[in-house]
Amino acid sequence: MSNLKDVAELAGVGVGTVSRVINNQPSVKPKTREKVLAAIKQLNYVPNEIARNFKMQKSNLVALLLPSIWNPFFSELAYYIEDELDREGYKLILCNSGGKPAKELYYFDMLSQNKVAGVLGITYNDIESSLDTEIPIVSIDRHFSKSVPCVTSDNYTGGRIAMRELYKAGVRKPAFLGVVTSVFSETMLRKKGFIDEAESLGLDYIVYEEPDPVMDDLKYFGNFFKVRERREVDGVFAITDLFAAKYIDQAQKYGIRVPQDVKVVGFDGIQDSTLFHPILSTIRQPVEEMARTSVRLLLNQIAGAAVSLETIRIPVQFRPGETT
Amino acid sequence: MSNLKDVAELAGVGVGTVSRVINNQPSVKPKTREKVLAAIKQLNYVPNEIARNFKMQKSNLVALLLPSIWNPFFSELAYYIEDELDREGYKLILCNSGGKPAKELYYFDMLSQNKVAGVLGITYNDIESSLDTEIPIVSIDRHFSKSVPCVTSDNYTGGRIAMRELYKAGVRKPAFLGVVTSVFSETMLRKKGFIDEAESLGLDYIVYEEPDPVMDDLKYFGNFFKVRERREVDGVFAITDLFAAKYIDQAQKYGIRVPQDVKVVGFDGIQDSTLFHPILSTIRQPVEEMARTSVRLLLNQIAGAAVSLETIRIPVQFRPGETT
Repeated sequence: MSNLKDVAELAGVGVGTVSRVINNQPSVKPKTREKVLAAIKQLNYVPNEIARNFKMQKSNLVALLLPSIWNPFFSELAYYIEDELDREGYKLILCNSGGKPAKELYYFDMLSQNKVAGVLGITYNDIESSLDTEIPIVSIDRHFSKSVPCVTSDNYTGGRIAMRELYKAGVRKPAFLGVVTSVFSETMLRKKGFIDEAESLGLDYIVYEEPDPVMDDLKYFGNFFKVRERREVDGVFAITDLFAAKYIDQAQKYGIRVPQDVKVVGFDGIQDSTLFHPILSTIRQPVEEMARTSVRLLLNQIAGAAVSLETIRIPVQFRPGETT
Repeated sequence: MSNLKDVAELAGVGVGTVSRVINNQPSVKPKTREKVLAAIKQLNYVPNEIARNFKMQKSNLVALLLPSIWNPFFSELAYYIEDELDREGYKLILCNSGGKPAKELYYFDMLSQNKVAGVLGITYNDIESSLDTEIPIVSIDRHFSKSVPCVTSDNYTGGRIAMRELYKAGVRKPAFLGVVTSVFSETMLRKKGFIDEAESLGLDYIVYEEPDPVMDDLKYFGNFFKVRERREVDGVFAITDLFAAKYIDQAQKYGIRVPQDVKVVGFDGIQDSTLFHPILSTIRQPVEEMARTSVRLLLNQIAGAAVSLETIRIPVQFRPGETT
């Protein structure tokens, strides 16, 4: 079987150049690359990563599991994850799991067979019983009891900040609008922060939740507005920006104006322009930093570093808009 | 070297079950799967696709090149492409090329080395000189002169419909707002449709374009509004929804109200809710059908079917909003 040196000799270049061609480095001139590729073909040399994978059982693919890339928060996250992986020579496989455990498990199988080097995941499924320990996985927004590190935004402090900003805007009868998931998610801490801050301010508050996923917005808000005291709140902290926007839309039907009658704060910061209204006052998630931190953590694991079980919580900020 | 039958015997299952485990089919019970995997390990059997790739030089990965997944049109497209690929057992590698040719070329290299089975691409770079013929590529929205099929929406008819809808809304002094790209793109036909329809209606019209990419919106619209006759148009067809929204935002500074003074139609249909305003009147791209058609075309090519050079143009529809 021919080797790197044979290829270099036939192509009339140095071994380093052949290596650069094999590793797809852009610094090789097209003509030189062509000569090298021709020599590789002629000698039937097997240069590519498939051969290397075969021997070394390594992959440069990282799988990203998302409920849906269509969601603007997730597409921003995917953008930065791909960018950070690309810097390190890794490629991103995208999986819209749509909350389907079977589809997610497929990628964990790939991982256990070394077809992917690691998995980054946002999942709301209870798949932990299917996970091996000590495989390279980093979770985003979701705890596992086993040894999976988690990167998330500081949801708890975000909840406190939201309540404090509502208070500063004059709110004295606040409500939290959210959903209940069956599995513990870091996003639940938004509610906890809201409650703790409301209590420390000595305010009465309302918590309104229905089981996730909410299939019928009209029903959710119909139930909410049915009760008089809920129609009389003067401030709303919604678990996501989308919920905040839906509340504002539905509140109009009851003659409730935002921000005149009710101040509203969302969570995420999905609006990336000021072209569409209302521009939500919101707790902005540090999406770019969450993405890059997750990738670095995963690549450290792939490189064999010890896994820290600590959850990394990245600070959030209040971004004022038109709704407070 | 041990074979499938050895594994089946040691695991105490049928050969079909081993095959199902190897092919990651979900129909195998976890306990059975464990037994099979243990047998594979004990016999050092090489079951996975890396080995198969090594022999057959095939991959089940498809690369998707996008300028940026962060863009809502592209993230919707990626969502449906992943869904269609998944149905056929293919996985999606995501590449945000950000308009960088070097990053795109990397994936064409992977393609030529059989590390990916095919490439789906939206690119505005002039990379055709680097393309081999007869490799599985399907382009979206972009023509190549070589044998690359293209799937796109019917941009020309979209332009005509936009102008006709403006006319129906009372517009008599229409303007087209767009950008000029250096390489031919199907999106240029939006302007052509607009012009042809305006002429067939016997209307004078304005075409306003600056080179792509527009780095400074204030300057773009500052230049546009500088000229009096442009401030006096009563209808605007913008090349994208984002452009339409920017026009509406900037026009306010000149006391121009939409839709009272100027009717506006965009192109794309990126707004997927009615929660944020203005809700744009727009030509909706058939994103799901574009995605699924592209995938089917690519998989046909991968399977060895003859490549049709015809551009597939999928019908578009007008979606009324608050701006006409």
